[in-house]
Amino acid sequence: MPQKGEASTQGCPQLADPFKMRSTVNFYLCYLLCLALGLACVVCVCLWNSRWRGGFAWDGSALQFNWHPVLMVTGLVVLYGYGAVLYRVPLTWGQNKLPWKLLHAALMLISLILSILGLYAVFNFHNAKKMANLYSLHSWIGIAAVALFAVQWAVGFAGFLLPCSPVLLRKLLKPVHVWLGGSILLLSVAACISGINEKLFFVLKANLSGAEPYSNLPAEAVLGNSLGALIVAFGLVVLNILSNIKWQRPDSRPQDMAYTPLLQEEND
Amino acid sequence: MPQKGEASTQGCPQLADPFKMRSTVNFYLCYLLCLALGLACVVCVCLWNSRWRGGFAWDGSALQFNWHPVLMVTGLVVLYGYGAVLYRVPLTWGQNKLPWKLLHAALMLISLILSILGLYAVFNFHNAKKMANLYSLHSWIGIAAVALFAVQWAVGFAGFLLPCSPVLLRKLLKPVHVWLGGSILLLSVAACISGINEKLFFVLKANLSGAEPYSNLPAEAVLGNSLGALIVAFGLVVLNILSNIKWQRPDSRPQDMAYTPLLQEEND
Repeated sequence: MPQKGEASTQGCPQLADPFKMRSTVNFYLCYLLCLALGLACVVCVCLWNSRWRGGFAWDGSALQFNWHPVLMVTGLVVLYGYGAVLYRVPLTWGQNKLPWKLLHAALMLISLILSILGLYAVFNFHNAKKMANLYSLHSWIGIAAVALFAVQWAVGFAGFLLPCSPVLLRKLLKPVHVWLGGSILLLSVAACISGINEKLFFVLKANLSGAEPYSNLPAEAVLGNSLGALIVAFGLVVLNILSNIKWQRPDSRPQDMAYTPLLQEEND
Repeated sequence: MPQKGEASTQGCPQLADPFKMRSTVNFYLCYLLCLALGLACVVCVCLWNSRWRGGFAWDGSALQFNWHPVLMVTGLVVLYGYGAVLYRVPLTWGQNKLPWKLLHAALMLISLILSILGLYAVFNFHNAKKMANLYSLHSWIGIAAVALFAVQWAVGFAGFLLPCSPVLLRKLLKPVHVWLGGSILLLSVAACISGINEKLFFVLKANLSGAEPYSNLPAEAVLGNSLGALIVAFGLVVLNILSNIKWQRPDSRPQDMAYTPLLQEEND
């Protein structure tokens, strides 16, 4: 039985196979790029903190701090981005939406838990060293991203997964959920860039024993800067996938985008 | 005589006045917020550099550096954002598009010139102090934003304003121009956040005479952090305006967003 969205496009000459196929191929190229960039981010942040920053521990030392960038990049950026674009994968369209909703919610929950662990790692390290928390712009942007993410997950769970949630509420929530989703990613990327930049200035100083200054661009600086560039590229690819209406799940695609978003029937 | 986009909506019951009016009112509320946030960013960055950083000069001193944040925030963020959302203002729809294209190009050119002057201010300051250029992640992201902006302006001018530019080229360029426009704004915001964060760590140190450290959140730190928060809020509002299809100029609004962006007739 055809999907509602698919059926409504069958009589439309513009949606003939060549256009559809080109759009699908373009999507998968973009999706592969997204997966590859996300993986590269995780590899780079792990490599940086294990090879150049001395590895990991959970004892209040600098090695505990190293979990912070790894968990934030893996959770708040990469897993978050993967979860955000899940509904765009055409492979998921020919089936009931519920299992994909559950997978979206699960990916986002893991991403949120990793982010909270990442925050806990840095708070715990600061407290052990009697350092202040939440004073830098980096921390303000980062904590705003995680707080909004927690609210987004809770409201999304209540609004889109609880069976008692009324359809009208879902319709009202959906555009807010989509917009806030993209906004949280922008905040995460800005927090990561400022955090990596700050960390490289802290640790790459000529007066530390044997260390080359950041301005000489030693290998660690190139790796850290490349990690930042990869995070930005990943964020741009995710936002590009999310903003492309051709790549939306057919039953989420508005029939007339002009003035009717609240009048469309929700197909789940 | 009605606009093409307007005429095509007249027979559509979903576009009855209450929806249209609600959408227009919502747009103007969002647009006012955008204008106010942009103005607040400019006021904050000027206040910070004139009141707390000692003011301005063009002599290779730290006072020359102070032009850098002022020109980048004013040019690459605020004027850029104002120029980007220009076509969304319904007041501009009932008229020929050409004057608005010229205004869009002019605003973007002023924004680009201010950004280049902002880069020149910091390069000149670094060179005078024999400091390295372009090594930090902040500088990599910032220079990428300005370089992409310069390419975007030149290609946009050649593609959309030169009369000899073929219609097919315009149709191919448009989605790339729109996507790159949003991406440059994301890069600019990330560059600003990392730059403000870095600057506050540089200047707010307990060992400088009489200065309170950043971690004590003195007034300058609160102002700098608030400037960063305002820039992020401005970026989110601009991206929200740009991504809302209800607020697109009617003759730019796709009739069927699914697979026909390259088949639509360009109305200018």
